[in-house]
Amino acid sequence: MSILTVFDLAGVFVFAISGALVAIRKGLDVFGVLVLAGVTGLGGGFIRDVLIDATPPAALTDWRYLVAPVVAGLLAFRFHPALGRMERSVNLLDAFGLGLFCVTGALKSLDYGLGVLPAALMGMVTGIGGGMLRDVLASRVPTVFRGELYGTPALAGAVLVVAGAHTDLPTLLVALAGGTLCTGWRLLAIWRHWQAPVATGPASV
Amino acid sequence: MSILTVFDLAGVFVFAISGALVAIRKGLDVFGVLVLAGVTGLGGGFIRDVLIDATPPAALTDWRYLVAPVVAGLLAFRFHPALGRMERSVNLLDAFGLGLFCVTGALKSLDYGLGVLPAALMGMVTGIGGGMLRDVLASRVPTVFRGELYGTPALAGAVLVVAGAHTDLPTLLVALAGGTLCTGWRLLAIWRHWQAPVATGPASV
Amino acid sequence: MSILTVFDLAGVFVFAISGALVAIRKGLDVFGVLVLAGVTGLGGGFIRDVLIDATPPAALTDWRYLVAPVVAGLLAFRFHPALGRMERSVNLLDAFGLGLFCVTGALKSLDYGLGVLPAALMGMVTGIGGGMLRDVLASRVPTVFRGELYGTPALAGAVLVVAGAHTDLPTLLVALAGGTLCTGWRLLAIWRHWQAPVATGPASV
Repeated sequence: MSILTVFDLAGVFVFAISGALVAIRKGLDVFGVLVLAGVTGLGGGFIRDVLIDATPPAALTDWRYLVAPVVAGLLAFRFHPALGRMERSVNLLDAFGLGLFCVTGALKSLDYGLGVLPAALMGMVTGIGGGMLRDVLASRVPTVFRGELYGTPALAGAVLVVAGAHTDLPTLLVALAGGTLCTGWRLLAIWRHWQAPVATGPASV
Repeated sequence: MSILTVFDLAGVFVFAISGALVAIRKGLDVFGVLVLAGVTGLGGGFIRDVLIDATPPAALTDWRYLVAPVVAGLLAFRFHPALGRMERSVNLLDAFGLGLFCVTGALKSLDYGLGVLPAALMGMVTGIGGGMLRDVLASRVPTVFRGELYGTPALAGAVLVVAGAHTDLPTLLVALAGGTLCTGWRLLAIWRHWQAPVATGPASV
Repeated sequence: MSILTVFDLAGVFVFAISGALVAIRKGLDVFGVLVLAGVTGLGGGFIRDVLIDATPPAALTDWRYLVAPVVAGLLAFRFHPALGRMERSVNLLDAFGLGLFCVTGALKSLDYGLGVLPAALMGMVTGIGGGMLRDVLASRVPTVFRGELYGTPALAGAVLVVAGAHTDLPTLLVALAGGTLCTGWRLLAIWRHWQAPVATGPASV
């Protein structure tokens, strides 16, 4: 098992925990908890793979990607009061998952022949898509659209990766730089409560 | 017209009725009723086909799959008070549609080269995906996430099918066993009001 | 830059404006405004391309399709009070975008080998899909399901296009007729407040 796969599975696991916690708060049954765990952990990669024509997605050809969210969902179902109290820690881990996903998503999209701009966009989608599907299925406006900065760091990290991939720098270095930018910015946003600006002036009805 | 196609169209038709009834209760116009009928009847297969790379989906290459939900939607639009009173009967038919879809979905996914675990998952998605899309478009949390058991029987039927497909048993027998398990369990769940467990303990905010 | 591309980008731009205005009214931050602008402008084409197996979608291979919604979103973010007051004008432009998308969507689907009925359906989906995704992400029932006629003109225009494509008439003429039918009907619907019928009789619970 390569180190990248280990990181990737860890990212799926952490995202799945966040999906399961949302499901539990909404009062869903264990089946709903497991589906939301899976959708949150794997959904961003699914959207990317469907759009860049990399189907079937990796998660449907490697059973470990299906087991990770199931384990996360069952753990959350059983220990959610403790996990809920540790939400700050979960958010910190989530920031690492976000950094990882925006990097791997951008690199995979470049591999599949996408240009610089679309590949950066797909990197961002890989990072935020699972949480967006989670919120749509929980019937609420995606949290990435308001509150603390989340999508912008993912886009920034992905942009750095695709820009670096067009230089002579080794891929590992570029990936590290992109992931650090995304995760670091996200952690600062949590710590300092940075928010993206909202439109000013009267919103017409 | 093969017997399987007849069953398949019947499944689409019954699912489309349920989609149309939800749309009517939400006060949507006839266009919304037809779209929700189509999405509920065909959506599960669409999600499966997009993920396993079987595009364009069968419903876009065979006009009968488009006519079935339109007829179901128009009938529901015209006769919904009677259909609403027969909802118990609609739910019984829906259980047969669920059993059928989880079997055909799992078998098709195996045909497209998926492994045992992903194929079982895709069988379940074929069964519950249309109803999930219906509820997302109706702006409510999918009913499959709470209430009487629905997704678990679909998963169980699909698991039995993929397990049986790896034996020497004839496919027809395996399909019948999987469909019977799913439909029978679902009917029992309706009859006895079986529900999946919900997480206990205080849900943190 | 061909004349068709100019029209197509204009359609994306106008649709993106409507997505951005919905996001601003929902109080989303600038990131949410840009995502909803992009999803509304490009979503219909994405759904069509994924279903007819034309991935990656055109918008991921031509950077101009990504720039158009970003510019629209930023303009709306900055000038939304003025744009909101001009909503009637935005709706008129939107009717032209709808006519354009239902035509190009139907023609592209025919090019990819779809039959008459599915191609007409995909033309309609190209026209209404972006707005449906916009409303799902804004956590509300899609407006195309109620209120003034919107989906029916799109379907009618697409049907005329696929019917005409099976004659000897020049494609340009067929496209113009389909677009005129869709846009004209839509404009009349706005002007005369035409609505699609709603089911009558008591809706059972």
